[in-house]
Amino acid sequence: MATVRLLADSELPPDSAAVFADIRATRKTDFINNFWRALAHDPATLKRTWESIKQVMGPGALDPKVKEMLYVAVSIAHGCNYCIASHTAAARAKGMTAEEYREMVAIIGMAAETNRLVTALQVEVDDVFQNPQG
Amino acid sequence: MATVRLLADSELPPDSAAVFADIRATRKTDFINNFWRALAHDPATLKRTWESIKQVMGPGALDPKVKEMLYVAVSIAHGCNYCIASHTAAARAKGMTAEEYREMVAIIGMAAETNRLVTALQVEVDDVFQNPQG
Amino acid sequence: MATVRLLADSELPPDSAAVFADIRATRKTDFINNFWRALAHDPATLKRTWESIKQVMGPGALDPKVKEMLYVAVSIAHGCNYCIASHTAAARAKGMTAEEYREMVAIIGMAAETNRLVTALQVEVDDVFQNPQG
Amino acid sequence: MATVRLLADSELPPDSAAVFADIRATRKTDFINNFWRALAHDPATLKRTWESIKQVMGPGALDPKVKEMLYVAVSIAHGCNYCIASHTAAARAKGMTAEEYREMVAIIGMAAETNRLVTALQVEVDDVFQNPQG
Amino acid sequence: MATVRLLADSELPPDSAAVFADIRATRKTDFINNFWRALAHDPATLKRTWESIKQVMGPGALDPKVKEMLYVAVSIAHGCNYCIASHTAAARAKGMTAEEYREMVAIIGMAAETNRLVTALQVEVDDVFQNPQG
Amino acid sequence: MATVRLLADSELPPDSAAVFADIRATRKTDFINNFWRALAHDPATLKRTWESIKQVMGPGALDPKVKEMLYVAVSIAHGCNYCIASHTAAARAKGMTAEEYREMVAIIGMAAETNRLVTALQVEVDDVFQNPQG
Repeated sequence: MATVRLLADSELPPDSAAVFADIRATRKTDFINNFWRALAHDPATLKRTWESIKQVMGPGALDPKVKEMLYVAVSIAHGCNYCIASHTAAARAKGMTAEEYREMVAIIGMAAETNRLVTALQVEVDDVFQNPQG
Repeated sequence: MATVRLLADSELPPDSAAVFADIRATRKTDFINNFWRALAHDPATLKRTWESIKQVMGPGALDPKVKEMLYVAVSIAHGCNYCIASHTAAARAKGMTAEEYREMVAIIGMAAETNRLVTALQVEVDDVFQNPQG
Repeated sequence: MATVRLLADSELPPDSAAVFADIRATRKTDFINNFWRALAHDPATLKRTWESIKQVMGPGALDPKVKEMLYVAVSIAHGCNYCIASHTAAARAKGMTAEEYREMVAIIGMAAETNRLVTALQVEVDDVFQNPQG
Repeated sequence: MATVRLLADSELPPDSAAVFADIRATRKTDFINNFWRALAHDPATLKRTWESIKQVMGPGALDPKVKEMLYVAVSIAHGCNYCIASHTAAARAKGMTAEEYREMVAIIGMAAETNRLVTALQVEVDDVFQNPQG
Repeated sequence: MATVRLLADSELPPDSAAVFADIRATRKTDFINNFWRALAHDPATLKRTWESIKQVMGPGALDPKVKEMLYVAVSIAHGCNYCIASHTAAARAKGMTAEEYREMVAIIGMAAETNRLVTALQVEVDDVFQNPQG
Repeated sequence: MATVRLLADSELPPDSAAVFADIRATRKTDFINNFWRALAHDPATLKRTWESIKQVMGPGALDPKVKEMLYVAVSIAHGCNYCIASHTAAARAKGMTAEEYREMVAIIGMAAETNRLVTALQVEVDDVFQNPQG
């Protein structure tokens, strides 16, 4: 059970209602998922989070599907079940195939394994990887 | 300092030497990074890990650059500095642009933020996301 | 479902019964939450954990409400749903307002985001922050 | 070594220079710490992150010192050494005493311990803690 | 609810059916747990994961019971509830006594506590512990 | 650099000096590692932590070597480099062989991989593993 009540549309503070309207317009759907209904108690955090998501997940250099897959990968490593369910659904909706999904899952597993092997062995970074850019 | 000594080529157990030869042939370079030199004490784990990496990171449905970016994302969430350095370098070598890198980093940050917001609020998964496939 | 059975009062080992009596006397309530009923199979760990909690969460320099909020913050970062539920309830019982709760949640989210940005970028600690005290 | 170069003032993209000016004005100091110099390659993320931090860590219901302590707690649980160093320094600058610091550290340790005990035992949430609010 | 459907025996791709046969032969039981039924959509990952598990958890220098306890310890630290349930059951099946279980749980809790204390205090590694071997 | 100064013997608060004396007597060595010198600013936490460690890591049903290996496993999953170094050294001192070390590292890696695969796939716990005991 959530720590806060999920707000129905009729219960929204006005500033949260404005954010919901923008979510609906941006996503071209009337559906608002539970995350936003839980955040809606705090209009400032709701607005900031939505606008950040809109900026970060919006059009850019990376394929929208890849953006969602990166989101899923982080969510798995952080153990956020809600985020895994919602962003896996979003990646599928944006075109992730079953084959791509399987490859992504396999990579996440392998990365977890070698992350912990490296940490166990306390391997020092090779000089050749010390190459700051940008 | 590593928990185990990094093995020079002259110190390798025979089965580890065979794996090093395959790494060099597959990657078309003489360079062997420290991770494999630390694992080389244990030929069975070295061989299994290398063959798994070769399978998982080899040709498939996903762009090799995207595969490395997923690896980086997981490594950041697990706090593995060696893995971040080595796989960021690999992603760049496989064509990740500065703009793609910046988008990836921004997504990882946002995912971390919303992962923890969702967990704080204990948001329940929407029915619409409960849609197992495959 | 718990990995161990939750013990009813009538099933307690004597040393665990003594700890339960102290929990009830300290908290001025007959209610014993499930965590202690699961730990009660192991009187030594039950006693040590309860006495540590009593020391650490007892009167000190920090407001009891702030102590519970720190507990919640750590529990969210570790993904312990039980701990989030129980310590959020405790923080509310000790006076955390809805506004304070919202600020806390927003801070935890931002910290998660910048933690992962810093880790992604492998930022080196500024000299000015290298200032051990105490 | 950072994954990206730390930018000097003379190297900043114009939009990043504007953010640096706001950081300096807001904090009333000429000093800009390395985190912002690493983020400065990406003016959009720099600006969004700074404005979010300014909102979240600005005046509100919680004492600024407590806000920094919550930030430190999350950073420890996520293993971000840079963040621990910088926000511990910030908490001290905002009035955290040595005694408060020690209590905070002890709470973080205890929370980690009981988080993992609860997870080990898979304890189910008591009904009394299932009480969404707000 | 799982992100992918759990496959019944009648739905298995042929390569996955072969792995299921080996799991049954190796474990001397007809029972196949859900993890393998979820992985079975991807015969390559199923086969690789099963063969790795068989190698790593097979006969060696460590007692099979101790191997399962190490698995449980990691699973608790990563917050994987499925893994905690299944490997705690496996450790019990391989002889872990109630007393050993309690000691393991207590150690995991203490390790979590001191891990976070050390990280909070940013303690530098003593020279005497800098002693790579192997 | 540590967040707090490491205290020399001549700087210890009296209650911390008493704990150091007990550490030396219990471990039969004059050497005190940095963790305790960092904790020594806070005699109550030093004393509580040391006594807990002494209880948990003292004689019991599990081999002292196995106890240290469980400690290492948790420390790797939490990314505590100091703890990995010190407890790997302790496990070696208590008899962990090179072969046992390699098996432990391989198990930790595999557990990390399957933990994340299970989380990615959101696999539901089989009824047969729902069997609370003790």
